[in-house]
Amino acid sequence: MRWNALDKETCSVARAVSVIGDRWTLLILRDCFLRVRRFEAFQERLGITRHILADRLRKLVKAGVLERVQYQSSPRRFEYRLTRKGIDLHPVLMSLVHWGDVHMAGNKGRPVLHHHTKCDHDFDPVLACSKCGDEVKAKDVRVRPGPGAPADILPKEIVP
Amino acid sequence: MRWNALDKETCSVARAVSVIGDRWTLLILRDCFLRVRRFEAFQERLGITRHILADRLRKLVKAGVLERVQYQSSPRRFEYRLTRKGIDLHPVLMSLVHWGDVHMAGNKGRPVLHHHTKCDHDFDPVLACSKCGDEVKAKDVRVRPGPGAPADILPKEIVP
Repeated sequence: MRWNALDKETCSVARAVSVIGDRWTLLILRDCFLRVRRFEAFQERLGITRHILADRLRKLVKAGVLERVQYQSSPRRFEYRLTRKGIDLHPVLMSLVHWGDVHMAGNKGRPVLHHHTKCDHDFDPVLACSKCGDEVKAKDVRVRPGPGAPADILPKEIVP
Repeated sequence: MRWNALDKETCSVARAVSVIGDRWTLLILRDCFLRVRRFEAFQERLGITRHILADRLRKLVKAGVLERVQYQSSPRRFEYRLTRKGIDLHPVLMSLVHWGDVHMAGNKGRPVLHHHTKCDHDFDPVLACSKCGDEVKAKDVRVRPGPGAPADILPKEIVP
């Protein structure tokens, strides 16, 4: 598996990490979900070089995760907004936050609280099943090759 | 924000990506959830150098995500198993898979199908609220500083 061909790999995780499997990229996306949109704001919060930030933003725009939108005409200024594809990364970010909260929050407690406006409670994200609605635990998941699978997608041990 | 101090950052995403924010690491974890446990099996599936694989496995063991367990005594052989902390990454991986399925699966369809043994249906993962059980959408989440938050954890624009 080569990195420069990772988006061609027939594995959804490999394809996903070809877009977001970079540490700065994940932190940029975190800030996008906190409504940060402008280059200078990302830079100030992340303490990242302009060069790296510009590179990661450009890649996210190219991947269709962010769009570059003009918000001022004279002088022309642009900001970065999550697309539908980008907003769909919310469960990935929320799951990462929760894991960090549970396993790496330290003794002061969690840094950020999340509030679900629909039910008006602070909440934790739960991975649920689209069919039965129950929480999905790792031990209750079985995998098998799907229609887009090459022969070697699953380890030999678990191929049915 | 500096990478070598990322685990000290007061942000659960930053702390989480300090452990798993690496592309090989995410693919190693994907294989762990597919019950791959042995060095040679990871290497064969990932086509990764022994040096990089050994480095990432060592870091995952150090972070408490994997444990190195002897499975044979003569000669001594070890395998890598997910700890509780590692198993708790399942929602992150499932969310990544699903995003890749939806947005990057190509025209052949998804490479792998996931089956929920509890309800005996193929399923998609849904991010649900621990309080009301409904799906959580990004637009319905508000954040505020928690007990472990420094002053600058949230962008100025959204601090209450």
